[in-house]
Amino acid sequence: MVKDTVNKIQSVDAALLQTAQARLDSLTKPKDSLGRLEEFAKQLVAITGQAMPVTGKKVIVTFAGDHGVAAEGVSAFPKEVTREMVLNFINGGAGINVLARHAGADVVVVDIGVDHDFTTDPGVPALHTCDSGGRIGFGKGGTAFITNKVVRGTGNIARGPALTRQQAEQCIQIGMDIVKAYAGQGYTMFATGDMGIANTTPSSAIISVLSGKPAAAVTGKGTGIDDDAFRHKVRVIEQAIAFNKPDPDDAIDVLAKIGGAEIGGIAGVILGCALNRVPVVVDGLISGAGALIAYSIEPRTKDYMFMAHNSVEQGHKAVHEKTGLKPILDLNLRLGEGTGAALAMQLIEAGMKIYREMATFGEAGVSEKAGA
Amino acid sequence: MVKDTVNKIQSVDAALLQTAQARLDSLTKPKDSLGRLEEFAKQLVAITGQAMPVTGKKVIVTFAGDHGVAAEGVSAFPKEVTREMVLNFINGGAGINVLARHAGADVVVVDIGVDHDFTTDPGVPALHTCDSGGRIGFGKGGTAFITNKVVRGTGNIARGPALTRQQAEQCIQIGMDIVKAYAGQGYTMFATGDMGIANTTPSSAIISVLSGKPAAAVTGKGTGIDDDAFRHKVRVIEQAIAFNKPDPDDAIDVLAKIGGAEIGGIAGVILGCALNRVPVVVDGLISGAGALIAYSIEPRTKDYMFMAHNSVEQGHKAVHEKTGLKPILDLNLRLGEGTGAALAMQLIEAGMKIYREMATFGEAGVSEKAGA
Repeated sequence: MVKDTVNKIQSVDAALLQTAQARLDSLTKPKDSLGRLEEFAKQLVAITGQAMPVTGKKVIVTFAGDHGVAAEGVSAFPKEVTREMVLNFINGGAGINVLARHAGADVVVVDIGVDHDFTTDPGVPALHTCDSGGRIGFGKGGTAFITNKVVRGTGNIARGPALTRQQAEQCIQIGMDIVKAYAGQGYTMFATGDMGIANTTPSSAIISVLSGKPAAAVTGKGTGIDDDAFRHKVRVIEQAIAFNKPDPDDAIDVLAKIGGAEIGGIAGVILGCALNRVPVVVDGLISGAGALIAYSIEPRTKDYMFMAHNSVEQGHKAVHEKTGLKPILDLNLRLGEGTGAALAMQLIEAGMKIYREMATFGEAGVSEKAGA
Repeated sequence: MVKDTVNKIQSVDAALLQTAQARLDSLTKPKDSLGRLEEFAKQLVAITGQAMPVTGKKVIVTFAGDHGVAAEGVSAFPKEVTREMVLNFINGGAGINVLARHAGADVVVVDIGVDHDFTTDPGVPALHTCDSGGRIGFGKGGTAFITNKVVRGTGNIARGPALTRQQAEQCIQIGMDIVKAYAGQGYTMFATGDMGIANTTPSSAIISVLSGKPAAAVTGKGTGIDDDAFRHKVRVIEQAIAFNKPDPDDAIDVLAKIGGAEIGGIAGVILGCALNRVPVVVDGLISGAGALIAYSIEPRTKDYMFMAHNSVEQGHKAVHEKTGLKPILDLNLRLGEGTGAALAMQLIEAGMKIYREMATFGEAGVSEKAGA
């Protein structure tokens, strides 16, 4: 079902890159002197197919899910933190809330796989679901909470699959539906984020399988484990791959066997952005694993992605190598949630504003380069 | 006179770094997981001496000046562009206007050495001067224009000094006065910017002398000269240094003999920010040359500086090496005007908002790291 939908993804309009370049070269600055900001503007023109893209609302979609593999002791934090942090998101106190406000972006928190029923918590706003009919949630202070729970925590990948194939497809579909719904509400830039204790473990496992690199080369210390725990984490990832034998040529199989619900949601958002011709800003390691799933399903998604930053997590580099996309920021971040993406959104938007708002040489009466 | 004033510059309050670290570690995120954003917050606490610094108004001070050395054919653009771009700044159409609006910062354009009398131009707003009495200009649409003209273009450094020593000191004093005046009006973050056709030539000359590196190693292609013109530019810089024999141990001598008025103004802003205990975001190559002047006059200025980005201009790296400061962004920028600084201001501010606004583990009821 997912494969049928993603067949509709089109390549970006490369002819528009020349139109965009001509405008950039007419602006009152030396040619190419705004470097990557100019790249961002050109990519936005190509993605949207509009010679002068509008800058509408921005949204960060942060998926939360639990992981059976947490039982193997791969994380520095207890599993309850997934639930606690979702409540922190809803109350506006987490890093992603602060940085989204700073960037002028809304946050949509999606319970796609948390091992907890939030309907029993006091103070949680009325729950909403997002479906293909486009019903979506709007919460307080720029934060919406959506529950589209596919699973109450994944299976422990060290001993079995994370999800069934049907659940994996369902996670992807939820991500695509969310993009469709928000794009229909005037959102023109999306970003991905994650919350899930132990989720660097399935992410590194996915990156290992889809990049062909050994687990030890794409595994990091997550939220802060020590050297012994790190070696254990690598062994758990090796075991998960050996036991489940995911097919590297079938990304949905990889997602189901060694992935996670939030990683599937992220892949779905990326596929959905490509389907809807809107840009998607990909956050750190976990979003990078989702990006590799989306890229493996449909390589054309690459043209719709911006890689927000270069994470401290060493596996992240393999994502950038595999997709050929260069990260925008390098600030030693490793929080996730979409925090790096929120920061990068401001820079991408800066590129668009340069493109739209700067005066041309003619308008400003500024002399051009000698011989130009 | 400048030396007497800068003697009052104090070291930042390093004890406050621990207070700031303790707060950062109490916030709902793994320790150090927001990387350089956390560094920025700590540095702002140490600079201001406040345990919880306020985030007030931001201003980018863009100095404009002409350069006699333009007659040597070192730039791709004609000299008239300095004047034309100042008018573009005043009318809000330049790159710095767009990016300052994006960052929520005001722009102050200072004619410190343009070879043109702007009072004869139609459409230029009422002129203001900034003096030690704190009278400052406020212009339309977030852009103010100040005229504190020290010189109508510098001397040609290939054949003589740029400025007299008195003029060089006067440029520095103007920068310090501007900071004092705007800090008194509630501005809590400053950035430096420049406009001046041919000004990468004196900037590379300054960097060569103060870093001890050969001219060829710190010279770039500026606004876009070809290989022949580049080799000529290197020879002009070598000639300027050989002819003027600036004393590397006397930064004001270096500024006077091979510098420029806007570079002196930038150095003055940096010294002024250190005097007033406010942060200063240093833009690209020309601002970097000003930063080396300020750093050579008083090394304690280093603690008040943020290096905005890593310019395409190769001489910029020598500035970062000499000061030991790591640039924040790397976006292939080479426009100047303060454009890179405007972008970096948003990231520094993001660090401060994380520090001020995130919930603590206790406030949010989130479990801490196992064993923490």
